[in-house]
Amino acid sequence: MISEIRHQPIIGVMGGAMVDKETLETAYQLGKMIADKGWILLNGGRDAGVMRASAQGAKERGGITVGILPQADRHQANPFIDIALATNMADARNLINVLSSDVVVACKGSAGTLSEIALALKNNKPVVTLGFEAAQVLREFTKPGLFRIASTPEQAILYVEKYLHDVLY
Amino acid sequence: MISEIRHQPIIGVMGGAMVDKETLETAYQLGKMIADKGWILLNGGRDAGVMRASAQGAKERGGITVGILPQADRHQANPFIDIALATNMADARNLINVLSSDVVVACKGSAGTLSEIALALKNNKPVVTLGFEAAQVLREFTKPGLFRIASTPEQAILYVEKYLHDVLY
Amino acid sequence: MISEIRHQPIIGVMGGAMVDKETLETAYQLGKMIADKGWILLNGGRDAGVMRASAQGAKERGGITVGILPQADRHQANPFIDIALATNMADARNLINVLSSDVVVACKGSAGTLSEIALALKNNKPVVTLGFEAAQVLREFTKPGLFRIASTPEQAILYVEKYLHDVLY
Amino acid sequence: MISEIRHQPIIGVMGGAMVDKETLETAYQLGKMIADKGWILLNGGRDAGVMRASAQGAKERGGITVGILPQADRHQANPFIDIALATNMADARNLINVLSSDVVVACKGSAGTLSEIALALKNNKPVVTLGFEAAQVLREFTKPGLFRIASTPEQAILYVEKYLHDVLY
Repeated sequence: MISEIRHQPIIGVMGGAMVDKETLETAYQLGKMIADKGWILLNGGRDAGVMRASAQGAKERGGITVGILPQADRHQANPFIDIALATNMADARNLINVLSSDVVVACKGSAGTLSEIALALKNNKPVVTLGFEAAQVLREFTKPGLFRIASTPEQAILYVEKYLHDVLY
Repeated sequence: MISEIRHQPIIGVMGGAMVDKETLETAYQLGKMIADKGWILLNGGRDAGVMRASAQGAKERGGITVGILPQADRHQANPFIDIALATNMADARNLINVLSSDVVVACKGSAGTLSEIALALKNNKPVVTLGFEAAQVLREFTKPGLFRIASTPEQAILYVEKYLHDVLY
Repeated sequence: MISEIRHQPIIGVMGGAMVDKETLETAYQLGKMIADKGWILLNGGRDAGVMRASAQGAKERGGITVGILPQADRHQANPFIDIALATNMADARNLINVLSSDVVVACKGSAGTLSEIALALKNNKPVVTLGFEAAQVLREFTKPGLFRIASTPEQAILYVEKYLHDVLY
Repeated sequence: MISEIRHQPIIGVMGGAMVDKETLETAYQLGKMIADKGWILLNGGRDAGVMRASAQGAKERGGITVGILPQADRHQANPFIDIALATNMADARNLINVLSSDVVVACKGSAGTLSEIALALKNNKPVVTLGFEAAQVLREFTKPGLFRIASTPEQAILYVEKYLHDVLY
């Protein structure tokens, strides 16, 4: 119910704008599962790649989606974003993506996604990687217990759940 | 219904953190009316003044509320914010407040609110003032048709409605 | 001497990108006088209006100029900017302009300049207006002693000097 | 001479606030060499770690130093910063560090430094790493020719010089 939105965790889903089909499918499944859990899905809002696919998955299961756009025009979000917010701050909005999420899940992506993982770790946000290639190396930048590597959306969801239980509440 | 959130306009309600009782009441009534119209209410999210009062009004009528916080911790939003987003960008988040709103309503406030009105005008956002004291003078900074001065919440709502009809669609 | 740059106050000069000839001349004279005092001139860096004219004045007297650009490419600054910094944050850079100045001087301008004055007042920065039209009204948004209205560049310089003496040191 | 500041490249030096002695020494030597080349040194401005050490090196050789602070108060920069700019944008200022540099040199650091490297690569800025541990892995996030790994300050300077010659001019 709408009256309970504020008690729903926000799960940030990061990942590339230009990615392979498999990554799109992973993001789509992840979006579905996030909605099934009753969590809000937040991402960068653009009409491309992981941003579009994960939002589509969440909306197909009736979830709520939030997009933080780099542009000035909030109506440029992909059609699966419910709450589209415009920053006109380019990559500086990556910080907002991360701080506004209770847990960050990073799918495959490139330097933009890497910057989001780094900003999450810098700000002690729990991170789950799901197909992000350099994941093993990123361990050295984390505090114990705030970084997990998942190999399937199901596993990512389990890790998120664990974070929500252990770290946040 | 949740599936239609994305078609709901976002109305930004700006105003001071420290204001008189009458302004709080105005913001509260305005929040109620925004929710009654089926619009999303967006504000600065803090647990004070117009931000708290307008969100409370909206929630009492079952509306959806979004708060863009200046802080790093999204859990510092007031209890009437559904979607609390954290920026850690201090007053730079004022730009996001404005760009993320389809129409900006400015209640009584001080320099922070003035900066939001100015940023709205700079970015060609339609503005309604409702009790903001320097309103007459701000006319000179606007393009024709993007600035209206309301004296009651009811009138502000009418102006917002007119903007949504004329300017945006 | 370069070794003493860090002890030079930074004076922010705000004002419109599209202004009349008289305002350009005022900004140019102001820039000269700021350099003559041994102060650093900071502005928005763009190749237009008050930003270009004030920087030109300062450079003709051998001053140092800093420009905080809204764009991503620092090489788009006007040719009179020594240190051109790029933000890609659009109007969010207005906050940086203000926070990075010890005193803000606001020439004639429109909504962007108004937002900078408002952000300065919000952050307790001393402000001098010099031809900014709505100046009288802005008094109500200030704390005592942090807002002065000048009618000539000479007077603006006197007010800046007074601020540097009274408020900052 | 001051009149030629605007033709001096800006070299960004990133790196941790809390680092070992060897990294401090490397940053200090790097700062000296940047100044010797007549380049401007830009960093995050804080009074700690690589930010302080690299600025100290540059100032001891008479170079110019710029610091982009995360805080609101520009007077909190380390004493070796000539031009201290305040953002009050926390880690969002990392984007400005990178966009304002012609070349980015990354010394040893943690997640904050990693975010700066990532933002540099995302924005096609040439990067040299100098002791940054995960450097090898970062190759996969770059475009050809925009990422080099140096093992000494001398080598880093050579790479910067090559970038300035090949990429920028």
